[in-house]
Amino acid sequence: MPSTYEVGKKLVDLCRQGKHMEAITTLYANNIVAIEAMAGPNMPARVEGIDAIKKKAEWWERSHEIHGGNVDGPWPHGDRFIVRFTYDVTAKEGPMAGKRMNLDEAALYTVKDGKIVQEEFFYHMG
Amino acid sequence: MPSTYEVGKKLVDLCRQGKHMEAITTLYANNIVAIEAMAGPNMPARVEGIDAIKKKAEWWERSHEIHGGNVDGPWPHGDRFIVRFTYDVTAKEGPMAGKRMNLDEAALYTVKDGKIVQEEFFYHMG
Repeated sequence: MPSTYEVGKKLVDLCRQGKHMEAITTLYANNIVAIEAMAGPNMPARVEGIDAIKKKAEWWERSHEIHGGNVDGPWPHGDRFIVRFTYDVTAKEGPMAGKRMNLDEAALYTVKDGKIVQEEFFYHMG
Repeated sequence: MPSTYEVGKKLVDLCRQGKHMEAITTLYANNIVAIEAMAGPNMPARVEGIDAIKKKAEWWERSHEIHGGNVDGPWPHGDRFIVRFTYDVTAKEGPMAGKRMNLDEAALYTVKDGKIVQEEFFYHMG
């Protein structure tokens, strides 16, 4: 079974290549729980289950143009690891449509039996 | 009472100025718990109470020469926030004495009643 660090390393490698959907398909448990720091206009803070997570990722990719970004980490501690994401994006829909933004967040992942069972996103809205 | 983000911002500001002891004195609760990703040769992974945390910080400052560093964040989520630390240091004692090293870690803090009650350090030892 892969270690927490190995799971984190794979996640970081895939995200750096822009392969977020492959990361979800290969590394996430079916009962994954994702928790945002706050709810969005069309998105609850808490999303459960692999299908809902995939839909959320598809929505994000569809609704943002990504100009660039960075993925740092992973930093492990026991069964958890942290990753930092920065993205330079333009929103394509919603209240921020047409706005170019720098997203800067950290994510805390929990691993069980070699799969990611929880992701929590940490960020500050200016 | 300061928000999670405000406590994190103060911690980052003080750490950027090298004022770690002032951060502990002003922002940490008396019953603070600090948990490292792993135990060190002379240091348990878990340290409890403000006096033990101060001793640990004094030991760290005494036993490392700091050439430079960066503090990024804070990224808040509810009553927790994450900070990233990178340090360019030379160990002055212990098995790594004389070795210049790049330390790269993330820390997860928990805030209660406006004070930091827990800090957990996340890192990978090569």
